[in-house]
Parts: sequence; structure tokens; C-alpha cells
Amino acid sequence: MPKLPAEPRAVKIAAPQQHGPAATITRRAADRLRAGHLWVYRSDIESLIPPLGATDIAGGALVTVTDSRGIPLGTALYSSASQIALRVVSSETALTREAYLVQLGERVNAALTLREQLAPDSAQNNASRLIFSEADDLPGIIADRYNDIVILQLLTQGTAQDDVRHILTETLRERLHPATIIERPDPKIRELEQLAAPSSAPLYTNDQSDPTLTTVFTINGLKLNYDAASGQKTGAFLDQRLNYAAAARYAKGHALDVCTYQGGFALHMAQHCDQVTGIDASRAALEVADRNLELNPQLKAEVEWIEADAFEFLREYEAAGEKFDTIVLDPPAFAKSKRAAEGALRGYKELNLRAMKMLKPGGTLITCSCSHHVSPEEFTAVVASAVSDAGRRVQLLEARGAAPDHPAILTLPETTYLKCLTCRVN
Amino acid sequence: MPKLPAEPRAVKIAAPQQHGPAATITRRAADRLRAGHLWVYRSDIESLIPPLGATDIAGGALVTVTDSRGIPLGTALYSSASQIALRVVSSETALTREAYLVQLGERVNAALTLREQLAPDSAQNNASRLIFSEADDLPGIIADRYNDIVILQLLTQGTAQDDVRHILTETLRERLHPATIIERPDPKIRELEQLAAPSSAPLYTNDQSDPTLTTVFTINGLKLNYDAASGQKTGAFLDQRLNYAAAARYAKGHALDVCTYQGGFALHMAQHCDQVTGIDASRAALEVADRNLELNPQLKAEVEWIEADAFEFLREYEAAGEKFDTIVLDPPAFAKSKRAAEGALRGYKELNLRAMKMLKPGGTLITCSCSHHVSPEEFTAVVASAVSDAGRRVQLLEARGAAPDHPAILTLPETTYLKCLTCRVN
Repeated sequence: MPKLPAEPRAVKIAAPQQHGPAATITRRAADRLRAGHLWVYRSDIESLIPPLGATDIAGGALVTVTDSRGIPLGTALYSSASQIALRVVSSETALTREAYLVQLGERVNAALTLREQLAPDSAQNNASRLIFSEADDLPGIIADRYNDIVILQLLTQGTAQDDVRHILTETLRERLHPATIIERPDPKIRELEQLAAPSSAPLYTNDQSDPTLTTVFTINGLKLNYDAASGQKTGAFLDQRLNYAAAARYAKGHALDVCTYQGGFALHMAQHCDQVTGIDASRAALEVADRNLELNPQLKAEVEWIEADAFEFLREYEAAGEKFDTIVLDPPAFAKSKRAAEGALRGYKELNLRAMKMLKPGGTLITCSCSHHVSPEEFTAVVASAVSDAGRRVQLLEARGAAPDHPAILTLPETTYLKCLTCRVN
Repeated sequence: MPKLPAEPRAVKIAAPQQHGPAATITRRAADRLRAGHLWVYRSDIESLIPPLGATDIAGGALVTVTDSRGIPLGTALYSSASQIALRVVSSETALTREAYLVQLGERVNAALTLREQLAPDSAQNNASRLIFSEADDLPGIIADRYNDIVILQLLTQGTAQDDVRHILTETLRERLHPATIIERPDPKIRELEQLAAPSSAPLYTNDQSDPTLTTVFTINGLKLNYDAASGQKTGAFLDQRLNYAAAARYAKGHALDVCTYQGGFALHMAQHCDQVTGIDASRAALEVADRNLELNPQLKAEVEWIEADAFEFLREYEAAGEKFDTIVLDPPAFAKSKRAAEGALRGYKELNLRAMKMLKPGGTLITCSCSHHVSPEEFTAVVASAVSDAGRRVQLLEARGAAPDHPAILTLPETTYLKCLTCRVN
């Protein structure tokens, strides 16, 4: 990552009409914004212009963005720490904090309306992503609902602020009437953005003396535990909701769920299979998976959980000649950066190749990737390469993505991240 | 298309063990087959070796394929006319016609079993693709079911033969008990492959004196007409079946269906909309659409059909300031060849840009492409470019493909052709 000089370089003299802070960006970055992208990397900033009377731009400030000829492109939230230095929030220039907050409230309402239209609350489903950052025109803000608990993540210097917290809390409370709204920090992002830890107290609770911090939520008619106080990452993967349902339609016989985490795919498949084996490297996750299993006594399959590394498990079971009717591969994001993508592709190749070899004829492989840095085409190509090495005849039945409550922005390819291929392996 | 010399060039002397015809292919083509592709273009053939005692290879013959070093790659069906000169049918060499036919019967049974597993016959659905050429390991063969009629297409010199017709007819009859099995030629492919016109008499009928040639079939609970005797292309687009259902979930208010053909998307949306306008350039197609409408008196919307060119209609209605709540774009394949792909992209751009401008805030755009020569990434990019020009904020909710009864082969990218994006236009 190219470093910005400690002092802003080439600070222009502010024009008389210029009161707020501004940033001039490279032509390449300006072209990207004009094509609908919303990010400016630090290496694409040509100059930072502090507001009148200041010597620096504060992290989290609203900054007017212009191209190198001074032509305005909009207003962005500035981060003094992240590689993504500017996140555009409006095509208007010189947006004030007040105007930003008004717009924020409107956009939160629009995001909630979309979710109501997509999947109305029902006995079958009462969990969904409510706000998905750029995809809802709300950069740096994520909110998820698990039945009566709403989890908020404020992921940038511009949004991890009390005025944003206040509007979000009020709007979510009025629209959804949850028992608890609580902020959960993402430790990695907190470090990237150099954010202070948020208070562990709920932003809102309907019972001050005994706030609701655990709940049971329902997706696709299955019950799952959620614990806002646990150190674990968000309970289920809501972006996989419809892929869980699709897997349940295809699964049969003895199913293997690799990287089952808290049992999402495994429990869905257990509705139709005779036997389900869920493996994960995290014992804590498997303990939740087992408690999730107990919540659903209607499940047909015999379910077992095995604590194991995915690669070691597949090597060992393949060598032992074990065969399955259905295999799910849902590993965590191998590629945490563009540089790591090549290693990730090798990892995907190995997992998919072994899984194909371990499927009975006519078996189903459901193979996922949630790496932002591996494109749908790259993932498809790596699975195709595994097909070619496995010497099996493979039919692609469905290519799926994230559930619609996790929209993507076509002009911001980084928002398309989840890939889920359903294959018949003959 | 590179032309093969009239006489096979560089005919090698047949080795003593070589009895059947053979073809030697370029290294590039051999690498493609090793990676799981199934086609060899005429320009990639290095030499054709006629069988002992012959001076030429007959169109439709089974040919052993080897790389330029003589290493065998399998057996392929040879076409003396098509640009795709060889279609691999087996990894075994010197496959006899008898062995090919045995294998064919097994593969047809496997294809039918997959369809039974995917979508069992029901009151809601009794139409599907039964056999999809390479995707079912049956190059040159397509079969569709519309209720009690099965339509067969034999698309290569190797499959448009009576022995293949016989096995297909017997297997389809035994497994499905249709009233009629009839072969329908594709005039364009017939020309490419220089095939004789098949008999217009059914291959099978349960009533010789009065064969069933028209029927009413059901998809997603909607009734539609099918007429095997009409000059029109296959009735509905079965590959769009689940996309029709998805469109029905999103559609509201006044919906516009551009290139509605026989009303597939329009009638599905009419279940939930107040008003549906279906436009198509073909009056004959719209007449069927109107008869389809009559079959479904339960539909809620007021439906109108307009005979018009899609581009002219959108230009005119956009200029008049017309607005819709939902728009479907499902144009025929613009790009009939790789060379035509650039023009196709311009066509998609214009249609999508106009549609985005004509949507009310919060409206839904369902935009499709069935061009084989436009990849999913290219189509997504052209829609993104329309977003950027339209100045609208657009959320991609779903990226869908063909229904699972139209599988794809991961190692044969040509089999992935249908793209369907569902976007919210704010």
C-alpha cells in the first residue's frame, strides 16, 4: 500500500467559495467514480485540502471530491487510516454533516422497506440483513436482524460516531420494535480504521435491568440460536439463506458438510437425508451447531459433528475410500487480500477435487466461495479445473449468489462476493 | 471459418491395428479436450484418416481422435459440414456404432432420471427439457416435454439417423408414456449440418388415425398452449421457468414485458400486477400469447399486447415520458456469432439504459440475455454501463441462469448461455 506523506502533499490554495475540506483525486480514480464506483484508494489522492483555519482533515469528515481539473464529483467520508480513504456518500458537493444525517435516515428507511418487500416477516423467516453498506448506499454501516435482536456494525471513522448511532437506533427501533439493538465491533476492521471499541452496553433495550442478548431465530422454518454476547462471529450466514434451502432440495443419503460452522447447511440437509456429518475446526462453533440441532427435533437425519481441519479430514477420508451422496463445501474466505487469491485458488482446487472424488455416482456437490478477491469466473474456472482432474462427468445445475437481502452494486464489483455452485457428479 | 481442403490433407498411412476412421488434431485442440471440452473445430484437424478400404470419412461416422503424437483422446461423431467437425462422445477409442447406441440408451435413461429428481411431474409443472445435448453427454440431441407431447431435435449428422431415432423413441415412450413423440427440425442447423428434412409424421403416436399435435401444458401453475404443427419455435422458453417464477415474485403495478413472445413473463407477472403490457415484433407470437391469456382466467392484471419492434417501442415510450413499475427485457439472441457480439452489446446497452430511465423509483428491472457469445461477465458489465449512464442507483438482487433441467458443463463454457439479472432501480 503506497503511503501518504505525513503532511498532505501539494495542498492547493483554497478557492474563496471553499469552506469545507476537499480532496483532489487522480484521473483513474475519477473515471472509476464516474462509472459508478464509490471508493477512492489512498494512493489515488492527489491532494487533501483542509478546511479554512485547519491544518489537517479529521478522520470521518465529509470531504468534497474533485478530479484533477477541479470538476466536482461528490462528497465522501474520509478515513485517515484505511486504504480506502474516501467512500462517496453523495453526488452533491460540500454536503454538511446535517444534510448527511438527513440523507442517512432516508436511506435507512429505504433499506428497511426493501427488506419488507423481499421477505416479509413470517413464521418461516425472521432474520435478515437489514442494511448492507454500499449496496444500500450506506457505506460503513451493516445491520442484521435475528428475530428480536438487531446487530449493528459501524465500520468506518465516518460512521462509528454517536450521531450516526442515534439515527440508526431511532429508525430501527421505530420500524422494527426489537427487544435489543446492540453494536458489535469487527476487530479487524476496527484496527484498519483505528476505531475505539464501542460500548458493550446495548444502544437500545426494552428492558434495562435484563437486556435480551440471546434469542432463537428462524430461517427457512429451522430454528437457530443467536448469542449477541458470545465472542463468535454473527450466528448464521444469512447471505446463504436461499442456498441452504436449495441444498435441502438436492441433498439425499449421507451428506457431508465441510466447514459447517454452526450447522447451517448440515441442519437444512438433515431434513431430507438419512445421515449428516458436519465438520469444522472450531469446537465452539460445533457446540452451537449441536444446540441448534436440539432446537429442531423434527429433523430426519442422524447428525454427527466432527472437529477437524477441512483439508486433513478430506485427505484422510478420501484415502480411506469414504463415499457420500451429497457434499457441501463452504470454507471461510481463503483470500483475505488480492495477493492471497492465488493460494486461495489452490485451496479451492484441492477441496473441490477431493470432494468430487468422494461423491457416489449421481451425487451432488454444493460448493461455495465467499472470498471477495476471487471472482465468480475465477471460482467457476477452478471448479472446472477440479472436474477435469477428477475425471468425473459433472453437470452444473445452478449458479447461485447471496440472498437478495444482500444486494450488490453492479458498478462496484467488490460487492459481489458469494458464489454457490450446485453440481451433479456422475 | 477456415475451409478444409476438398481432399483430406496429409492422410497418414493407417497403422495395421487401425480399422475405423481416425482424426489427428492440433495440440491446442488436444489440450482443450484434456481440460474437459468436447468439441474440435474443423480448423483444428491436422489429418483425417479414412477407414481401411475407403477414401473418405462419411458424415456422422464415429472417429477415433488422437493428438499429433498419436496419443488417443477418445471417440467423436464426425460432421462433414459443420464448423464443429468433431463432438466427443466417449473417452474410449474405436467406439463401434453398436457400443455408441448402447451408451446412448444408458445416457438417455440417466438424463430422464435427473429430470425426475429435479422436478417431479405435478399439477404445477408438466413441461421440461429432457435431454440437453452435451450437458447430458448426448451431443446433437435435444428433447423437450410439453405435457403429453415430446419434441425431439437431432442436430448433427451423427444423430439425425434412424438408429438414434429408434432408441430415443423407445426409451422416451417406455419412461414417459407420451401421446406423441415428434421430431422438429431446426432449419438453420439443418443447413449447417446439411441434413435432410425429417419426416413430418410423428415418431410415435398412441392414435395413428388422429395423432395428438397440440396440447395445453403447465409451468408454475400457469396453463400454456403448445402446437407441434405450427411453424413457430418451441412454445415457451422452458429454460426461463424459474426466472418467470422469480419475476412473478418481484412484479407489481404496471409491468412491461419487452419481447414477450408468447407471453411467458407477461402472464406470470399478471398474477400480481394491476396492468401488464407485452410487446413483440411477431403478430403470430402475440396471437398465441392472447390464447394463453384466455387459458388463465384467474389472472389479476389487465393485459394488453402490442405488436412493435423493441427498440422503436422503447424510444417512443421513453420520449413520451411513460413510466412502469416493473420491466422485463428478454430479447432474442442478438449475437448469433462471436463477430456479432459487439453489436449485440450495443443493443443490450440501449435496451437496458432506456428501461432504467422508464422505471419509477423502487421499480424492478428483470433483464435477460440468451446469447451464447455474450458471457455472464460481459452482460453484467453492459448492464453496469447502462446503470452508470442512467444516473440511477441500482441494486442487483439476483443473478440467475437457466433452470436446472438445462444443466451446463463447467468445462464447456458454451453451455452457459442464459443470464437473468433482477435489479431494483431507485
